[in-house]
Amino acid sequence: MEKLTRRVQAAAGKRPADLVIKNGIVLDSYNLELIKTDVAIVDGVIAGLGDFEGHHIIDADGKYIVPSLIDARVHIESAMVTPSEFANAVLPCGVTTIVTDPHEIANVCGSEGISYMLQDSENVPMNIFFMLPSSVPSTSFENSGATLSAEDLKPFYEHSRVLGLAEVMDYPSVAHTSPSMIQKLFDAQNKKIDGHAAGLHSNALNIYKSAGITTDHECITAEEALERIKRGMYVFIREGSVAKNLKQLIPAVTERNARRFMFCTDDKHIDDLINEGSVDHNIRLAIQEGVDPLLAIQMASLNVAECFGLSTKGAIAPGLDADFLLLDDIESFSISHVYRAGELVAESGKTKMGTKVTPSNRITSSVHLPTLRKDHLNLAVSKEEANVIELIPNQIVTKARKLTVDHDENGGFVSCSRKDLMKLAVIERHHHTGNIGLGVVKGFQFHDGAIATTVGHDSHNLIMAGTNDEDMIKAAEVIQEMQGGLAVIRGKKVIGKLPLPIAGLLSDKDYPTVIEELEEIEKALKEIGAPDHFNPFLTLSFLSLPVIPELKLTDLGLFHVGEFRHINIDE
Amino acid sequence: MEKLTRRVQAAAGKRPADLVIKNGIVLDSYNLELIKTDVAIVDGVIAGLGDFEGHHIIDADGKYIVPSLIDARVHIESAMVTPSEFANAVLPCGVTTIVTDPHEIANVCGSEGISYMLQDSENVPMNIFFMLPSSVPSTSFENSGATLSAEDLKPFYEHSRVLGLAEVMDYPSVAHTSPSMIQKLFDAQNKKIDGHAAGLHSNALNIYKSAGITTDHECITAEEALERIKRGMYVFIREGSVAKNLKQLIPAVTERNARRFMFCTDDKHIDDLINEGSVDHNIRLAIQEGVDPLLAIQMASLNVAECFGLSTKGAIAPGLDADFLLLDDIESFSISHVYRAGELVAESGKTKMGTKVTPSNRITSSVHLPTLRKDHLNLAVSKEEANVIELIPNQIVTKARKLTVDHDENGGFVSCSRKDLMKLAVIERHHHTGNIGLGVVKGFQFHDGAIATTVGHDSHNLIMAGTNDEDMIKAAEVIQEMQGGLAVIRGKKVIGKLPLPIAGLLSDKDYPTVIEELEEIEKALKEIGAPDHFNPFLTLSFLSLPVIPELKLTDLGLFHVGEFRHINIDE
Repeated sequence: MEKLTRRVQAAAGKRPADLVIKNGIVLDSYNLELIKTDVAIVDGVIAGLGDFEGHHIIDADGKYIVPSLIDARVHIESAMVTPSEFANAVLPCGVTTIVTDPHEIANVCGSEGISYMLQDSENVPMNIFFMLPSSVPSTSFENSGATLSAEDLKPFYEHSRVLGLAEVMDYPSVAHTSPSMIQKLFDAQNKKIDGHAAGLHSNALNIYKSAGITTDHECITAEEALERIKRGMYVFIREGSVAKNLKQLIPAVTERNARRFMFCTDDKHIDDLINEGSVDHNIRLAIQEGVDPLLAIQMASLNVAECFGLSTKGAIAPGLDADFLLLDDIESFSISHVYRAGELVAESGKTKMGTKVTPSNRITSSVHLPTLRKDHLNLAVSKEEANVIELIPNQIVTKARKLTVDHDENGGFVSCSRKDLMKLAVIERHHHTGNIGLGVVKGFQFHDGAIATTVGHDSHNLIMAGTNDEDMIKAAEVIQEMQGGLAVIRGKKVIGKLPLPIAGLLSDKDYPTVIEELEEIEKALKEIGAPDHFNPFLTLSFLSLPVIPELKLTDLGLFHVGEFRHINIDE
Repeated sequence: MEKLTRRVQAAAGKRPADLVIKNGIVLDSYNLELIKTDVAIVDGVIAGLGDFEGHHIIDADGKYIVPSLIDARVHIESAMVTPSEFANAVLPCGVTTIVTDPHEIANVCGSEGISYMLQDSENVPMNIFFMLPSSVPSTSFENSGATLSAEDLKPFYEHSRVLGLAEVMDYPSVAHTSPSMIQKLFDAQNKKIDGHAAGLHSNALNIYKSAGITTDHECITAEEALERIKRGMYVFIREGSVAKNLKQLIPAVTERNARRFMFCTDDKHIDDLINEGSVDHNIRLAIQEGVDPLLAIQMASLNVAECFGLSTKGAIAPGLDADFLLLDDIESFSISHVYRAGELVAESGKTKMGTKVTPSNRITSSVHLPTLRKDHLNLAVSKEEANVIELIPNQIVTKARKLTVDHDENGGFVSCSRKDLMKLAVIERHHHTGNIGLGVVKGFQFHDGAIATTVGHDSHNLIMAGTNDEDMIKAAEVIQEMQGGLAVIRGKKVIGKLPLPIAGLLSDKDYPTVIEELEEIEKALKEIGAPDHFNPFLTLSFLSLPVIPELKLTDLGLFHVGEFRHINIDE
């Protein structure tokens, strides 16, 4: 009440505003025009456009004043930093609101993981909204850290920053109306429901949309995008670290349908966020592709706000949150200042620090590996040929190959650099089961050493690949010590590591430190012979994802996606 | 749950749809294109676009299938029929959803009036959403039937069909942050708040928008419309019985800002609704003015749904309510069939009947007049000249004149047809106060008789104008007998009447009967000399509205709006 009164009084000129931005050129997001006007702000909310007096005056000096950006969908975990640190990293990109899906941490820590993400993002100078992970675990072909039923999710809908249900990716469960999936969808009917409609066409889209799923971020062609728009879905145009869809999708956008399009990053690594940007990068790319800059900005702000019902976001207008950017130039979208709720939160690429929540013990003690012995890694192959996972650089699909492998005196598989064949292991790390899945992978090209990570989609067990068992055993030891993270081992020595003690997924350090550690990792990878043209850790982290073809490895062994069953190494 | 399951199963082709519309051309409201596809419907909701089997097949025979229409704002009371009867009247116009503001009945019956409107609209084959009257009473210069405080309104927000707070028209209260107004606005901050921003410019619009008021239906120029859009308001383009704004506003609409525009009727009489249409008329006019027909239809459907957060309305797409029209032709917007929730509700201008609620006694017993004697109507004028209200045909503003009037032997005012001066009376009818306000009106041109009505904005006291006291007394008697309505008297005989027993505002009859009664009234008006070029009852009903300049009459006497006070007849 008091704030509403103060705001109206300031609008009426009966009291000075807290802050007035003068001499700027404001984006009118509704008419898509630029207008010369001052902006008055009270209690973090815009009170008026026009002439105002204020306690504090900022001279925009002819700069453009545009709404700050909203990332429609992002997995914070892909940046390997905490939510509060993520805010520090992307605020300079002009992003003051994100919609996140804590899918990865939920697979490790369940409800507690979601609670941690909500808590850690509570007091940051950014609006971090949540969609609840719909598919934990992703499959039953592996052991994840947690299971989230509809009943587990329900209490979270009470939280003011929870907007709905995140990417529904289990198409078969929807299409077959599995009761547990229908219950999750039903509980979210009055909320937002994001889809993951990769490769789905007309009938499948009918199924998704009739179930209340209203967005998709997995389009890869303009035709796919238009097919989704036609059925009333919103399309998120994604530019992440790996998936880059903007150039393919942007031809689908016209002034008549643009309101149904917006931008997201989905999965973007911390170094890419720092070097290239967040959805500000999508805007720049769209402008390069010929989109009207004002429309591109609208797509990254007003359209997302409308899609998610964030009625006080997305434009520079009275009654809306004072979340805005000062731009030096609109064509190049060069950001000089970032304001959120009327406070300067970033300037020339630098940000204030947020408040961090200390994660609970369950979250920081999530890695429970068996003490590995050599015999644990013994992979008996009774035939000359074995079923081998062949990786494809920069893709998350693999090829299932049958290849001749080398054997030791006991008939066990032996890595061979010449043939580019290495041992692959997935070790259950959540529940002390001691489960170890073993396999053979082709394509990493290491001449030496081993790599290991607790980032292993989607269950995030320990996954490692090595040229010898000793280095793999050492890798597991290091990972256990760090309570998760990335490690590169050579000659039983740690030559690169990145600790991720929070759920085995997130660093507890600031992002510049994480970037340094990543650089160390990169150097180490070169030492063991990793090629330049793909990211071995990223590739490794998807070799355990049993929903993507063709052959994968889980803690329960090799999984053939086409045949939809576990197979033996030598069958 | 069961419905969701059935819908998804039908989308997946695992069960036949309830209904499939084949051979139609469907409006894709999101891309603004026409597409050839069948539409499958289950449980009143669209399950898919594509090829489907159904229990029931309808051959659209090449007709256009477009979303049915939403009137963004309408006072049902202006049609003088009950909500259920209103539905019968406008369903053939293709309108299956309306947002109504029961402002008039609330001024008579308060909360009970709103409850009646909600109940009567519960089981009709139309979605009738409500905005809560924000200004009951409109002013303190007269006695209305009820007062609605913020506290009175609050319980109604629990109702699923109540969307927010209706036209905030008391600009001074907002601008001066009167606590009672701020409380009403505060309670609706997470709902929708409609504005009534007639004539307001930049600073006043800042005040309104910063208070959370997001719509306006009172623009009369394109510039005004753009000024509102710029501040993030939605603009309702109105075509009512009196206020007709479309031709002036439509030039403001472009493909870049069209999403902020929609259509409404606001106040439209039953005969105009039947003869001309509801917002379907706005669509036809817009098309005539050069708007792309697909965009015009989008304005009357999807845009309204988005504005009011009606996420299952506004387009033909899976998961949305099966509210749609079959059109013979799109350019002329000629409607052949109207479906609501998959049911045929109107065909070739004919509709099914809704269910009526019997109004409670309080609602049907709202007229409490004193037994009038001649001396009640004695209007002493001590000078030769009197303050006279001069009506302006087809406007709700009046002129305040000082004119020479005739006197009887006791110094009382005497009507004079030659001078076109008649007696005007407003009699309080809600609380048995016996208050009678008397005045003189110029402009009705009757040579004979009297007219009276309980539709008197905004307090809806009895208002009557007559050439002689006897006919006025008879008129009051008839109105009392009918418990409200319209009456035309000549020579102490009733020559035309329209009973409005529900709150003195609504008929309890069907709309064809009301139209017949209106025709009888029109004939009677001609008998007493009423001219053709304006509607005397409409004019009369606004002579008591003390918020519109220049001179008005309430039950407390003459009110000079410019001086903002009651004045004497002869001061």
